[in-house]
Amino acid sequence: MSLTAAEVEELIRAGVPMADDLGFKVDEVGQGYAHTRITFTERFIRPGGTISGPVQMALADASMYAAVLASLGKVEMAVTSNLSINFLQKPAPCDLKAQAIVLRLGRRLAFCEVRLLSGGEGDEQLVAHVTGSYALPAT
Amino acid sequence: MSLTAAEVEELIRAGVPMADDLGFKVDEVGQGYAHTRITFTERFIRPGGTISGPVQMALADASMYAAVLASLGKVEMAVTSNLSINFLQKPAPCDLKAQAIVLRLGRRLAFCEVRLLSGGEGDEQLVAHVTGSYALPAT
Amino acid sequence: MSLTAAEVEELIRAGVPMADDLGFKVDEVGQGYAHTRITFTERFIRPGGTISGPVQMALADASMYAAVLASLGKVEMAVTSNLSINFLQKPAPCDLKAQAIVLRLGRRLAFCEVRLLSGGEGDEQLVAHVTGSYALPAT
Amino acid sequence: MSLTAAEVEELIRAGVPMADDLGFKVDEVGQGYAHTRITFTERFIRPGGTISGPVQMALADASMYAAVLASLGKVEMAVTSNLSINFLQKPAPCDLKAQAIVLRLGRRLAFCEVRLLSGGEGDEQLVAHVTGSYALPAT
Repeated sequence: MSLTAAEVEELIRAGVPMADDLGFKVDEVGQGYAHTRITFTERFIRPGGTISGPVQMALADASMYAAVLASLGKVEMAVTSNLSINFLQKPAPCDLKAQAIVLRLGRRLAFCEVRLLSGGEGDEQLVAHVTGSYALPAT
Repeated sequence: MSLTAAEVEELIRAGVPMADDLGFKVDEVGQGYAHTRITFTERFIRPGGTISGPVQMALADASMYAAVLASLGKVEMAVTSNLSINFLQKPAPCDLKAQAIVLRLGRRLAFCEVRLLSGGEGDEQLVAHVTGSYALPAT
Repeated sequence: MSLTAAEVEELIRAGVPMADDLGFKVDEVGQGYAHTRITFTERFIRPGGTISGPVQMALADASMYAAVLASLGKVEMAVTSNLSINFLQKPAPCDLKAQAIVLRLGRRLAFCEVRLLSGGEGDEQLVAHVTGSYALPAT
Repeated sequence: MSLTAAEVEELIRAGVPMADDLGFKVDEVGQGYAHTRITFTERFIRPGGTISGPVQMALADASMYAAVLASLGKVEMAVTSNLSINFLQKPAPCDLKAQAIVLRLGRRLAFCEVRLLSGGEGDEQLVAHVTGSYALPAT
């Protein structure tokens, strides 16, 4: 049974304390994708006035998980197998959005791609590009 | 002028709020390397009783930065260019150590490797393997 | 001055002998992208009847280079800085296509994404996903 | 039953035609590691007088496979799941060596690290750093 955006958000916030700390929100989910965001706070800032790398990585990881949950239903024991992030430009000090898609859903691994976007509607900049895989529980 | 472990720790904690939240400690630094750790707290846990991926990534990123600072002195504007992590096994719910080395220090990029270790002295397990690069400020 | 698909192909085949060995072809180029392919031969096969990983990586690397050349004009000294490939499924023993895009063109690095596709028109499968960066010559 | 260096070399050359083209040699193997090399030929060269990226990637991939075969015995159907390479400096136009180790041998994945070295005994330079994983056949 497929999950709603609110259900995915609650599962992730309950399971991953850091997602809760970051104010992680799930805007939209569907088969194979999730749109998520974190709301800006001063705590994310690092020298140079930009959002720190670990905050971007935490958002990317939670977003991949959201896309996997949206595609498979509740699979609490799925764990990240690897994550690779390229930081393309410094995000502005504002909300950060993530668009995660499942590129391939295998029996043992879900392989995902995430784009992190900064800025308002119609003026979004790609600030980081992420790929990663989730190991799925044996069924 | 080279920095002490305490100076590196203070620079990172002051500059990256998440490092401070995680109780990031620098045990030892030298030319080309840094040994660091985070002290376990219940807040790191995710389903399955293990330390969450984002916490591991935050430690790895801060540790690379520590190794770069230890090698170059104070370069506050260095930013992570990319980071790739492979999660090898679930860390136990205890302190997590990181051993970061600078594999190559170029003019524009410092390329690093980090090993995340879990468990007590003499019984450490490699739980994650990380590579990444830091973009250095133009000089 | 922008280059044609034929010019990009010739530059790469002249400069990278392995591209020539693989029968590397450039179908189409434009600002920020390149569509390329290699023609299947029995020499690409590995156990399991699939195209070997190194052949896929060589195609991906040449395709990134094609997208960079298409975007910047002739920059012979650009070199790959890193390349990360995820093999998603085994390609069929037939031509392999690549769609490379430049995600971000910085002053020092061009960051690219490549999708490797197998199969005929209208029935293409994503077989590998690649990200990578090219170091650009100082200007 | 463990394999000798010669047996590993023969398995890889028979199975991966590109390894044979490159003159891939296995110098030494043992539980969890393999030392390999390719003999320099003019065909590897790219603009700038250095060994091309695809040749380095092919060597790295074959070396990971050698370390897996050395550790598990004959597992012909193991396939690369991902490979990530960072090119650290341009290799000189001479033989290229690879030191591959298995960092973790799981039930489903073998996770490896490879260092590519250029230059003579006692004067070796680390030219590329590679991580990757091999999917193991279900047993």
